[in-house]
Amino acid sequence: MSDNTAAGLSAPLIHAIIPAGGAGTRLWPLSRRHHPKFLLDLTGTGRTLIQGTVARLEAVACTTTVVTGSAHLAAVAEQLPGVPCERLLAEPSPRDSMAAIGLAAAVIARRHGREAVVGSFAADQTIADEPAFHAAVRQAALLAQAGWVVTIGVEATGPSTAFGYIRAGEPTEVPGAPDGRRVLGFTEKPDAATAAQYLATGDYRWNAGMFVARAGVLLDHLARLRPALAEGIERIAAAWDTPQRQEVLERVWPGLERIAIDHAIAEPVAAAGGVATVPVSMGWDDVGGFDALVGLVPVQEQGPAAGAAVLAGVSGAEGTQAAGEVTAVGSAGSLVASTTGRRVVLLGVPGLVVVDTPDALLVTTPGQAQAVKGVVDGLRAEGRDDLL
Amino acid sequence: MSDNTAAGLSAPLIHAIIPAGGAGTRLWPLSRRHHPKFLLDLTGTGRTLIQGTVARLEAVACTTTVVTGSAHLAAVAEQLPGVPCERLLAEPSPRDSMAAIGLAAAVIARRHGREAVVGSFAADQTIADEPAFHAAVRQAALLAQAGWVVTIGVEATGPSTAFGYIRAGEPTEVPGAPDGRRVLGFTEKPDAATAAQYLATGDYRWNAGMFVARAGVLLDHLARLRPALAEGIERIAAAWDTPQRQEVLERVWPGLERIAIDHAIAEPVAAAGGVATVPVSMGWDDVGGFDALVGLVPVQEQGPAAGAAVLAGVSGAEGTQAAGEVTAVGSAGSLVASTTGRRVVLLGVPGLVVVDTPDALLVTTPGQAQAVKGVVDGLRAEGRDDLL
Repeated sequence: MSDNTAAGLSAPLIHAIIPAGGAGTRLWPLSRRHHPKFLLDLTGTGRTLIQGTVARLEAVACTTTVVTGSAHLAAVAEQLPGVPCERLLAEPSPRDSMAAIGLAAAVIARRHGREAVVGSFAADQTIADEPAFHAAVRQAALLAQAGWVVTIGVEATGPSTAFGYIRAGEPTEVPGAPDGRRVLGFTEKPDAATAAQYLATGDYRWNAGMFVARAGVLLDHLARLRPALAEGIERIAAAWDTPQRQEVLERVWPGLERIAIDHAIAEPVAAAGGVATVPVSMGWDDVGGFDALVGLVPVQEQGPAAGAAVLAGVSGAEGTQAAGEVTAVGSAGSLVASTTGRRVVLLGVPGLVVVDTPDALLVTTPGQAQAVKGVVDGLRAEGRDDLL
Repeated sequence: MSDNTAAGLSAPLIHAIIPAGGAGTRLWPLSRRHHPKFLLDLTGTGRTLIQGTVARLEAVACTTTVVTGSAHLAAVAEQLPGVPCERLLAEPSPRDSMAAIGLAAAVIARRHGREAVVGSFAADQTIADEPAFHAAVRQAALLAQAGWVVTIGVEATGPSTAFGYIRAGEPTEVPGAPDGRRVLGFTEKPDAATAAQYLATGDYRWNAGMFVARAGVLLDHLARLRPALAEGIERIAAAWDTPQRQEVLERVWPGLERIAIDHAIAEPVAAAGGVATVPVSMGWDDVGGFDALVGLVPVQEQGPAAGAAVLAGVSGAEGTQAAGEVTAVGSAGSLVASTTGRRVVLLGVPGLVVVDTPDALLVTTPGQAQAVKGVVDGLRAEGRDDLL
């Protein structure tokens, strides 16, 4: 391994961007439209996923900017008292990740200069090994200073079909960033056989959607590749710190192109040889479903729910409540997530997932985690928006 | 088979006694101290178990007397508007089945004479084939007129270890009761091997605790076998229809011996050759646990919960509510009992039991049905009387 600590010493602090959107339908009924995944403490740490994301970035970021939907602005502000209100950007409506990250980058460029290094990190992921994450971000910042668009390449611990992959090529040879490699391309979520082939080569990493670049580099790529979108973003950013912000935002935002940063910038720039990746093994998880959650929630070692993973009183910034209301007998490996305070008893049901909320109860297994989205789709089709 | 219809034509109507006690802890959290099993509609018929019991007896009974705990008197009265209040007997405290049935028999003897045939039937059982039950009761009534203490012998459909057994001997040769046989003895709940041996002989029936006898015969046996208990019961019965009832009841009842009618009368009288049985196959069930309930609740043939058995809105006399709030995908053979009105979603969990109540949720399997009592014992040990 390279000496990450030494590499980090000369790296610039980044301006972190946290796009906080997406309901997390695969975690229904815990996660809802009005209580999305990033606002929940899903891993029993006492802080929500977005709080964890912000805290994790403190060691490498000089500022943190959050872009979220207007509906979630108040909750985000309440959960993140350390983020000044001028760095909480509210989207009037969802316009996908390029508009969100682009706007934040443009606002940061105007506030801190186009040489500022920005880094975008999803609000709802977990990382077990924070020092490894910090070292990777520091290398990415040095690569970004050198002009690269950099993505963090998460070590693929299995042939997952739930993630896109990054294919790494030759080293980038940037001083202080010894792990940097050119990106030969990005792939969509593969089938299982393809994923296994990827793993066998040793050159593929999971794409966690973490991008680091100089603000000016990012915005220049955008201006070249998506000029209309770039222009709209620049108009809004120019008005952001003025009295005209709301008027311009309401006029321009609805017309912005809906496109992911992956398609708008990462893929075409990679094809032109301008993207680098910093591979890292850091215990990353996107908390994508109940199968992931079973692995993230600590198993009770003693007490009435010993052997089961318990999230009692899952909620927002208030943290987790005691697990005293859950009893699990002969139910090892089960996950109970309850927001009701009811007594929940599991009797002789190992490996089950029980999600208990005031208006909906889900009983399933980790193997069905990806099917939960279908339940939510069914509720929407039924017109049960109250349960979404 | 004998001609039960012809036999029934000459049989006397009985005075039915329904002892309604017992919480049904193996059906927790549906069944509670204050909402015991017999007050619940557990089979989706639109009537509670005690309402079903009373309705089933109408064809063979001229009166129905219910003996229940003081705490349940109001609920019983509300559920049974057809039973006059003078036939609702309230026990100040539980004194087991002999005191309850003995008191009712003694009150009936004073009201209708000692020749009146009484029959005792538990409040919380189900019978699918009511004509077969009626025919058996009519034969039992004729045997009772002839002086026998008669028990209904339920056809053992499997080597159950949950019931006591009746061993039948030679025919009793009473006109109109062609199926009657002497009882050679009663057995406690056997182990599985013993139960299988019983079944192989063809002479054993399940003891469903249904006893039919002339009131005078029952009380004479009691006076001989348990004179103190008999005397106490007679003193209370003598005061029952007088202004002294409450005073005598409060003074005498607490001192009555706690003993089951099986031990007090059935076993010793059988040993002396005085008990007969009418064997019958009638689709009987004691709704003893969730394993039984899975077999009794109709499986949804279509709709969002197709393949699962659903009891939505389990409650008292109000009957069942619509099953529309339950969704079951890939969960055939599961049972959902919900009293909350919440959306309950089962996803890929066949053969599960989910019991959803406002303050407690149980997730288990039919195979764990007998272990539910242990959960209740645990709650009691915890001091969680509010959940019992």
